[in-house]
Amino acid sequence: MNTPSFTDQAIELGKRAKAAARRLAALSSEEKNRALNLMADRLEAQGAFLIEENRQDLESAKKAGITGAILDRITLDPGRVQAMAKGLRDVAILPDPVREMVKMWRRPNGLQVGRMRIPLGVIAIIYEARPNVTADAAALCLKSGNAVILRGGSEAHRSNHAIGKVLQSACAETRVPSEAVQVVQSKDRALVHELLQLESYIDLIIPRGGEELIRAVVANSKVPVIKHYKGVCHVYVDSDAALEMAERICMNAKVQRPSVCNAMETLLVHETIAPKFLPSMIAKLQAAGVEIRGCEKTRALGSGIKGAKEEDWSAEYLDLILAVRVVKDLDDAIAHIERYGSEHTESIITTNYQKSREFIDRVNSSAVMVNASTRFNDGGELGLGAEIGISTSKIHAFGPMGLEELTTTKFVVLGDGQIRE
Amino acid sequence: MNTPSFTDQAIELGKRAKAAARRLAALSSEEKNRALNLMADRLEAQGAFLIEENRQDLESAKKAGITGAILDRITLDPGRVQAMAKGLRDVAILPDPVREMVKMWRRPNGLQVGRMRIPLGVIAIIYEARPNVTADAAALCLKSGNAVILRGGSEAHRSNHAIGKVLQSACAETRVPSEAVQVVQSKDRALVHELLQLESYIDLIIPRGGEELIRAVVANSKVPVIKHYKGVCHVYVDSDAALEMAERICMNAKVQRPSVCNAMETLLVHETIAPKFLPSMIAKLQAAGVEIRGCEKTRALGSGIKGAKEEDWSAEYLDLILAVRVVKDLDDAIAHIERYGSEHTESIITTNYQKSREFIDRVNSSAVMVNASTRFNDGGELGLGAEIGISTSKIHAFGPMGLEELTTTKFVVLGDGQIRE
Repeated sequence: MNTPSFTDQAIELGKRAKAAARRLAALSSEEKNRALNLMADRLEAQGAFLIEENRQDLESAKKAGITGAILDRITLDPGRVQAMAKGLRDVAILPDPVREMVKMWRRPNGLQVGRMRIPLGVIAIIYEARPNVTADAAALCLKSGNAVILRGGSEAHRSNHAIGKVLQSACAETRVPSEAVQVVQSKDRALVHELLQLESYIDLIIPRGGEELIRAVVANSKVPVIKHYKGVCHVYVDSDAALEMAERICMNAKVQRPSVCNAMETLLVHETIAPKFLPSMIAKLQAAGVEIRGCEKTRALGSGIKGAKEEDWSAEYLDLILAVRVVKDLDDAIAHIERYGSEHTESIITTNYQKSREFIDRVNSSAVMVNASTRFNDGGELGLGAEIGISTSKIHAFGPMGLEELTTTKFVVLGDGQIRE
Repeated sequence: MNTPSFTDQAIELGKRAKAAARRLAALSSEEKNRALNLMADRLEAQGAFLIEENRQDLESAKKAGITGAILDRITLDPGRVQAMAKGLRDVAILPDPVREMVKMWRRPNGLQVGRMRIPLGVIAIIYEARPNVTADAAALCLKSGNAVILRGGSEAHRSNHAIGKVLQSACAETRVPSEAVQVVQSKDRALVHELLQLESYIDLIIPRGGEELIRAVVANSKVPVIKHYKGVCHVYVDSDAALEMAERICMNAKVQRPSVCNAMETLLVHETIAPKFLPSMIAKLQAAGVEIRGCEKTRALGSGIKGAKEEDWSAEYLDLILAVRVVKDLDDAIAHIERYGSEHTESIITTNYQKSREFIDRVNSSAVMVNASTRFNDGGELGLGAEIGISTSKIHAFGPMGLEELTTTKFVVLGDGQIRE
């Protein structure tokens, strides 16, 4: 007996997904929601099974020397299982984007033309560590009418597989085809490589994880990829800023959750306000455990400040470290952002109407803010209802991706016998 | 003296384009329109120069044995130069999509969140034969605020280069940077390959040409690609069709311009209406020079009909050839389209309300039509104002791409000091 080749395994996954996607695209919102709620029920009911499978992942991980934050991210406990189930029910409540008529207009010849949202088709998600992504991503894909192929990290292999099994068995009780959610069995990277070649079966690849993983996917994929490299987010405190507000926002942007992509990594301060603003701001940040790396002018306004090196201006620390630079004016701030930024999230703190407008018009990042914390660049916080990832490339989606970003539109043309002259 | 490597040449093109894109993104519609109109004036004024350069391309092409349709497509004459100029002026009149606020909403915490259209940045277009694409594509990219790198076919190398020179010199008289429009100098394919690697400088690649060219670009590009493989368009004549209308639409869809991607390639006819509809339809198509390749039932309803082979059902003839199949019902028609179609354009001819709704909901092609010719799947005809290409993949754009499809949206967030809890 031969094991099928990785190519054959990948094609098999792709074919099943494509067939499921066609059936899924035709289902009503009610039918999809019923499946989502049932998936939630079954995850809760099978909690002990999931936790036992997860225990085996954790044992292997420990043997492999994995500890600390990564071990924590792999771990499932009753609370986390419940959170997964809640996530599925939350998605069931969201409005269904499929078959929404986005626009409709009439042509001079009487044709009525509109754009209708439809699912993308088949989405493959390649992710690391956290097993809850298996359920979260499956839910968002299902709700938006897409079949999904999930390939999680090998550290959580048994857990992901177990979650997939529970989700599939819930689907089997509904009109949603089981193959709408497939968890890749093989741990081999060769299979991932084969999936990346399947442009006739897979419509979109979303890699979620470290930059290395994402670069490898982009370099090898024939299927379109939506990617997120990094977030080097800036707050610019303008000469006209309300200082108390600026302090509050900077503190929140840096300290509330420093490990995520929408945390502030560089603070830019207008030179006329720097002497008034920076000394106390720096002291407060330092009191909160933040290491400051500053330009020369910054260093003169506080103590215990390391000199920032060139690479600090483009660093994504994801940690309690902050680069601080004093700039001449708004132009200088924007030039700094253009040169070192990652087009993720930038915020201006100002009371000046004209400068707020200029910042919004001239900074082309996925989110441009006035008087708000960069931490709001998140699908939930911006009102998308949920988030499958953040795109830092401009094609298809730029910024947080919710359900609508998992759809495309087709043209609908209603005629009365029109022909082209 | 060393010639710079292809890598260095490509990076140089990319850097210049990116710098130009930043300046271009900030320009007003008036400034861009002024450049477009000036480009049109200069093309007309330099008509003799363009035609002389083109003459040299034609001579080389003839020496290389190029004749017929391809030679015609390369040719520039005063009428075609004028048409290019008119194309530029038409684009100047179109509404500017940049900085349009697509949507705006308010969050419970008072944040006002919106999506604003912004240019993609830098677009590379890789195309074949027709030199007018150089001016058309440059105009659409410029209007939508994007810098463009143009790489045309080597048969029209001198013509493309000359057009690029005229466009650039017109830009130089305005605030539009000359590097907003760059025509690649080298004829070497190695340079194209290097462009495909430049994901930090180029935001989108649009290949226009034969399937081989497009597949090569997709296989090698790290930059996102929007592609168009082929159009196998279907008309389904339902049992409830108005026969005169069905005949008129089928004739138009097949005969009006058979060489383009939105021409009908397969006709599906409901079995109850086939005996009434097909004999005269087939005779009329044959009278117009169309070769019919039919299923067994079709062959029984006319004369001189070749038997369709399996490969005929997925053929994109781009010629006066039509595959015809008699189907059992709507389900059978949709199953045929799913199996053999290219998700390009499908039209149902029916007077039945319920069946029109089902066809629209269940067929997920880039354009789904009721009682209209497939030939309407075109940016101009659908009301997009212009068209840079048709996408048959669902990411970013599906179907004809106009100015809006050359933009993305950023989130704009207006706050009053909000922080995240």
